[in-house]
Amino acid sequence: MQRRELTAFTEITPVAPITVKTHGWRAKCLQRLIRLDLPVPRTVAISAAEVRAIAQGQLPDARSVLEGFGPSPLVSVRPSCENPDWGGPGTMLNIGMNDERHAALAAEHGAEVATSVYLRFVRSYAIHVARLDPDMFEGTEPSAENLRAALRAYALETDEPFPQDPARQLAEVLRSMARAWESTSARLLRQAKGAPENAALGLVVQKMAQGVGQGESGCGVIQFVDSVSGLPQITGRYLRQSQGRDALVPGDEALYLACDPRGPSLEDVCPDAYTDLLRYGVVCRANLREEMQIEFTLENGNLCILDAAKVARSSRAGVRIAVALANDGIIPRDEAVLRVEPRALSELLHRQVDPRRPRDIFVRGIGASPGAAQGRIVFTSDAAQASAARGEPCILVRRETAPEDIRGMHAAAGVLTERGGMTSHAAVIGRGLGLPCIVGANGLTLDPRERTLRTRDGRVFREGDVITVDGTRGEALAGEVDLLEPALDDAFTTLLDWADAVRDIGVRANADTPADAQLARSFKAEGIGLCRTEHMFFEGDRLIVMREMIFADSSEERAAALARLLPMQRADFIRLFEIMQGLPVCIRLFDPPLHEFLPQTRDGLHELAEALDKPLSDVTRRVEALSEFNPMLGMRGVRLGIALPEIYEMQARAILEAAAEVARAGYPVVPEIMIPLVSAMREVELVKTRIDSIAAAIRTRTGVNLTYRLGVMVETPRAALRAGDIAQHASFLSFGTNDLTQMTYGLSRDDASRFMSAYVQAGVFQEDPFHTLDVDGVGELLLIGARRARRARPDLTLAVCGEHGGDPESIAFCRAAGLDYVSCSPYRVPVARLAAAHLVLASLHAG
Amino acid sequence: MQRRELTAFTEITPVAPITVKTHGWRAKCLQRLIRLDLPVPRTVAISAAEVRAIAQGQLPDARSVLEGFGPSPLVSVRPSCENPDWGGPGTMLNIGMNDERHAALAAEHGAEVATSVYLRFVRSYAIHVARLDPDMFEGTEPSAENLRAALRAYALETDEPFPQDPARQLAEVLRSMARAWESTSARLLRQAKGAPENAALGLVVQKMAQGVGQGESGCGVIQFVDSVSGLPQITGRYLRQSQGRDALVPGDEALYLACDPRGPSLEDVCPDAYTDLLRYGVVCRANLREEMQIEFTLENGNLCILDAAKVARSSRAGVRIAVALANDGIIPRDEAVLRVEPRALSELLHRQVDPRRPRDIFVRGIGASPGAAQGRIVFTSDAAQASAARGEPCILVRRETAPEDIRGMHAAAGVLTERGGMTSHAAVIGRGLGLPCIVGANGLTLDPRERTLRTRDGRVFREGDVITVDGTRGEALAGEVDLLEPALDDAFTTLLDWADAVRDIGVRANADTPADAQLARSFKAEGIGLCRTEHMFFEGDRLIVMREMIFADSSEERAAALARLLPMQRADFIRLFEIMQGLPVCIRLFDPPLHEFLPQTRDGLHELAEALDKPLSDVTRRVEALSEFNPMLGMRGVRLGIALPEIYEMQARAILEAAAEVARAGYPVVPEIMIPLVSAMREVELVKTRIDSIAAAIRTRTGVNLTYRLGVMVETPRAALRAGDIAQHASFLSFGTNDLTQMTYGLSRDDASRFMSAYVQAGVFQEDPFHTLDVDGVGELLLIGARRARRARPDLTLAVCGEHGGDPESIAFCRAAGLDYVSCSPYRVPVARLAAAHLVLASLHAG
Repeated sequence: MQRRELTAFTEITPVAPITVKTHGWRAKCLQRLIRLDLPVPRTVAISAAEVRAIAQGQLPDARSVLEGFGPSPLVSVRPSCENPDWGGPGTMLNIGMNDERHAALAAEHGAEVATSVYLRFVRSYAIHVARLDPDMFEGTEPSAENLRAALRAYALETDEPFPQDPARQLAEVLRSMARAWESTSARLLRQAKGAPENAALGLVVQKMAQGVGQGESGCGVIQFVDSVSGLPQITGRYLRQSQGRDALVPGDEALYLACDPRGPSLEDVCPDAYTDLLRYGVVCRANLREEMQIEFTLENGNLCILDAAKVARSSRAGVRIAVALANDGIIPRDEAVLRVEPRALSELLHRQVDPRRPRDIFVRGIGASPGAAQGRIVFTSDAAQASAARGEPCILVRRETAPEDIRGMHAAAGVLTERGGMTSHAAVIGRGLGLPCIVGANGLTLDPRERTLRTRDGRVFREGDVITVDGTRGEALAGEVDLLEPALDDAFTTLLDWADAVRDIGVRANADTPADAQLARSFKAEGIGLCRTEHMFFEGDRLIVMREMIFADSSEERAAALARLLPMQRADFIRLFEIMQGLPVCIRLFDPPLHEFLPQTRDGLHELAEALDKPLSDVTRRVEALSEFNPMLGMRGVRLGIALPEIYEMQARAILEAAAEVARAGYPVVPEIMIPLVSAMREVELVKTRIDSIAAAIRTRTGVNLTYRLGVMVETPRAALRAGDIAQHASFLSFGTNDLTQMTYGLSRDDASRFMSAYVQAGVFQEDPFHTLDVDGVGELLLIGARRARRARPDLTLAVCGEHGGDPESIAFCRAAGLDYVSCSPYRVPVARLAAAHLVLASLHAG
Repeated sequence: MQRRELTAFTEITPVAPITVKTHGWRAKCLQRLIRLDLPVPRTVAISAAEVRAIAQGQLPDARSVLEGFGPSPLVSVRPSCENPDWGGPGTMLNIGMNDERHAALAAEHGAEVATSVYLRFVRSYAIHVARLDPDMFEGTEPSAENLRAALRAYALETDEPFPQDPARQLAEVLRSMARAWESTSARLLRQAKGAPENAALGLVVQKMAQGVGQGESGCGVIQFVDSVSGLPQITGRYLRQSQGRDALVPGDEALYLACDPRGPSLEDVCPDAYTDLLRYGVVCRANLREEMQIEFTLENGNLCILDAAKVARSSRAGVRIAVALANDGIIPRDEAVLRVEPRALSELLHRQVDPRRPRDIFVRGIGASPGAAQGRIVFTSDAAQASAARGEPCILVRRETAPEDIRGMHAAAGVLTERGGMTSHAAVIGRGLGLPCIVGANGLTLDPRERTLRTRDGRVFREGDVITVDGTRGEALAGEVDLLEPALDDAFTTLLDWADAVRDIGVRANADTPADAQLARSFKAEGIGLCRTEHMFFEGDRLIVMREMIFADSSEERAAALARLLPMQRADFIRLFEIMQGLPVCIRLFDPPLHEFLPQTRDGLHELAEALDKPLSDVTRRVEALSEFNPMLGMRGVRLGIALPEIYEMQARAILEAAAEVARAGYPVVPEIMIPLVSAMREVELVKTRIDSIAAAIRTRTGVNLTYRLGVMVETPRAALRAGDIAQHASFLSFGTNDLTQMTYGLSRDDASRFMSAYVQAGVFQEDPFHTLDVDGVGELLLIGARRARRARPDLTLAVCGEHGGDPESIAFCRAAGLDYVSCSPYRVPVARLAAAHLVLASLHAG
């Protein structure tokens, strides 16, 4: 049978036609090393097109490939696809080993070395090429007897002796690696890492530099920064008498690289080679424009460079490396900005579970607020507060959280809930507080009475047990695990300043409290894009006044209760304006349904009846009368503002009086007042008229020349469709994409968590639309709204203030839609700043 | 002071340039009577433009108007605006009466007659023209003394003697009537009746035909049909020695018109006049193309025709009159169709409170399901069933109804609820059952424990008290009131057949049960546009099987419970297909959240635990776990269908097996299967694949060449936006405008009733969008969806199946949007058929 001869290969020389596209990243990298005069052994690249042909065809004839490698060559084969992150089949070493070469090697370096090399080749060939059962070949000592046994086993299983022809061996290896690349599981794995469907594999065949033998021989890896911190540090291992990447596995026998008091080092045993490595490191960094990890071999004292690859790195190391490269003039600043993935920044803002530590995961859920926290389990907000009072960190575990849990959340180090999605109460508040949080941990059964937590596989956790919440990955771990501290260092600040210099869409923060506002400032948000005022009414004594307001029987009684809330609200706003120092502050008027402020339990009702001095039956009746079938779609937002005008009047007065006071103190401020849940223009008109008259009265009384901007939160599909009308009475529109998504899909974020992950996995929805903006549906409404609003009023400010404001893909959409700014929770502000910069730089590239 | 002379008046002659636009309907009608040679006294028409000038100017000089009326004329002035329904100021009689005319009249007809005429003129002039206090002038006997007193009072109040100059009197009357027309209250009143803002008033001045004096004198009205039934019948009164419309008020002294055993008649006393009147009636009907009421006077035996106007009529009379005119060849059929207001038909379908009876209204609400019913108050469904079992009609009074109340609603004669809107449970079911229903009766306080009903003004009704529910007007009346029976007679059927002959949009019925389907057939619906299957699971023993299904712990258990429901569902569908005899039947797959099938009360949970033989705690936990924050936006519709595929599989099997069985029996049927709550194409794809394989299996097993059509209910804004994608997997789309409205506005129909009427009154919303389709928002989504779906698949069927399907304005929108049919509750089918015909006829007129 005539075999197709393998001819489409190229020896890698400084001038050979090698590209990443045709031959893969490794072939190109090796060519660069060769161009830099690094001592790379002879290497031949097989193109991706050829590899695909090999995968689809019969066994090729590889004789010609081996011709340039001299007589009886030993070679390695390594994968070389377009992007190193996509993975690929493992390297095969020592191809060409056979009985004859074994004898020659034994004569040259001794039987032990020769047998060890041959046995390892037989094993890996049997397992990876012939696909025999690994159990038959693994874990035996390199003895002549074991070698014979392995060869015998191979013959027995395959019905032919172990192949002795190096060209046949190479051909089988190439076909095996080519086919491994095409397997379904490999394809799925690399596609999960972002590879396209037709991603191709190149291969490189390299002359083996034997790390075994006489004189100083061995192999090692070296890199010049720490993978976790990104700080300069010579890191790596050198293992005498070894081959391949053995040195990467920390072992007792490995040598340090630089002189080290703890033991022998490469610098000690072969100072010239060490000096050369350092030099090569500098050359590589400057010319490959990246921190590289270099794989090298010493062959009887001679240094060979086999391979080099980007240093693996944590997110924080990634930031520091990129900034250092730019500071050293190796890459431009824009490139440094582009090299850091925006989402990776959130790791830097929070404590993280040390990735080097083992993880005992007892349940997975949705990582709703990033960062890691550990503490004792508590099941109630009261317990959380008690624990905080004792100075003991705790994790609040709830079926789901409600506004009453806010104090408990403040007191806890982290939160874990059985229910909820990315925009459930726990998730939103968790992100707001920067509190690590896992929601939708469906695998749990909570028994609040027994104070236990049961997992599906029967593990039981009790109140007081220590757990760790990894809100970044959505994993709850048993016990304590080492944590890494946040990394808001110079490199971080520098990178984001560079990002700010290029981005062209504003980034504000959603901030409800002075603490949020401080955080927003520290992350350099350009203002507050959404200040929800309702949280203010849950604090301290305010709740009871709020409830008195709700129970008022007349407009006068209601106004009297609100008059007591007025100074508190005013003080809130003064504090916010002071912190934001003239930056814009967009305050949303009261939004939630009133029943959220009422107790739902029997005890709570009883207490309330006592506090209000009313009969329990009256209180119960009122609470029942306020309850709703679908609170999301009920009496809230502007509907409440119109039905009980006293509430918005009080809030407008508090905002404008605060602005007047701050103005007198020397900070000019133009407060932005935003109306929630609008669905018709007339709602805006009515509220505007009232606020205008309040503003006029305050202007007259204080003498401050007060101005304000009125805007609308676009949360209903109808508001988006009617944005043209609405814009006639608004200075700005801010798309509240959480609610807009709920209404466009007819999907409550609180209730959707039960099936959302199944829906996304089954591909019913491509993504969780509460996580990444649904461009096709919600996005179209946003575009319609933006276009109509701008047509009606070209100077209108347009923004997004939902959770999507911090999501890079969604920011891209907002920028394309011509929005002026996005607003997101403070902890997502850095991500948004960087993502916005990426968009500009990517469009420069594209353009 | 020189007065502007009034010159713009026209004597009404057969050839005078009189139009409805310039001189009003009455002037035009009088001209028609004159052209028909009816003996109309000399009449002069003053144009609307002139009347407006009079209203805005000084007192005109009316001398020239009176010139043609001979010496010392007495005249009347009547309003004549464009449309008789708009109202206008009252008629003034006997203008020209003064001391001199009084003396002459006394000489001619005796002092009593003369004084009576003069005194009445002085009174009405004082009250309506000089605007003096009515108390000073009303209710005195016509004596010389009282006349003197009235003249004295006039002089005292106005500081001038009663005007003696007829021209001055006429000028004052004209100006007074012109100004009355322009008053704000008159304007609001007529705008409420549909008049445009600039509606103008013409006036007619007519020589008085004295109904008093020697010989046979008097006045009367006659019409030739009964106003309530529309059946031919000579109706009216004749009052001797009277003027104006006195005869209209039934009085003991009035004569019958035709010979009557009960007393004297006009036919007896003046047979010639009576014969003439009959002749005039025939002439008027044929030439004015309408049933007219004629006002006449006998003056010494001479018949004068003073005025004629359309006979006032009930809706049922309107239908019979229109059909009779067309059958007699007087008007074309299309005009008969156009003359009946579609909404008016609903009165004919139900029993009505007799409009001639006094109404003791104790509370008003929303008339959610038309018709009248009376019975004893019951507060629970059990009591309703017990009452029905005793054969006693009852009215079910609830805070709101829930699915558990369906049996009670079946048993009740009518329903009254404190809460809810046009599309609340009670309203929808009420309309479905044809059960008179009032919802949102906010003025009630229900005490189910005390079994009392308290109104705001303190009236208390107890269980057992008889009340009447007027679901047409939304009024609850105390006690029994006479009711009129439905009028589904020949005229009704004929008119709708004529309507069907012209309309070009289909009308189907929403029908869930065999009874609904029968009703749909009897109203000639062209098929079932929406059969909701979930109601089927509440019936009889099914609920407990349904609950077993919900509590199933595995797919197998679930399938086993569903297998028990399968034959019941199949039987339901067989029955429906049989009734519909090959007409299309569109069946919506299961839609509501599962928790709707579970008990909410402690007792209910207890019973359920016993029935399922499970611990109460397990049952409670499952019920809690299924509860949702916003059920409307939760786990329902296709989401449930995908999460628990067994439910849709069972339903698809039941539908297709039923179709196969009916096909074998000789009725070919192509069932339409509709998927609810879709928001993404993939949902449709998944369900379609499953149903296709079920259909294939049934085809194989039964040998019946079964086909079916799969469609999507468009209820989410996203489904409308993505209709192009969705259409690729659907044969039809049906817009569920109830839910689409809820989601577009972000407004729950159940919760909105609390503020909807206030919102509409304040003009925040122009109409209740659950009642009339919101063209600007929901309508735009509907248009977008229709356009995209048709572009993707031109042969697609498009429909609307929400409550709006029965609303005439909404039907107009659907027709303009190119939809193929609308579907509405059976009782609205006739309204929709007629409204659809009107649209075609109106567009023919316009085109």
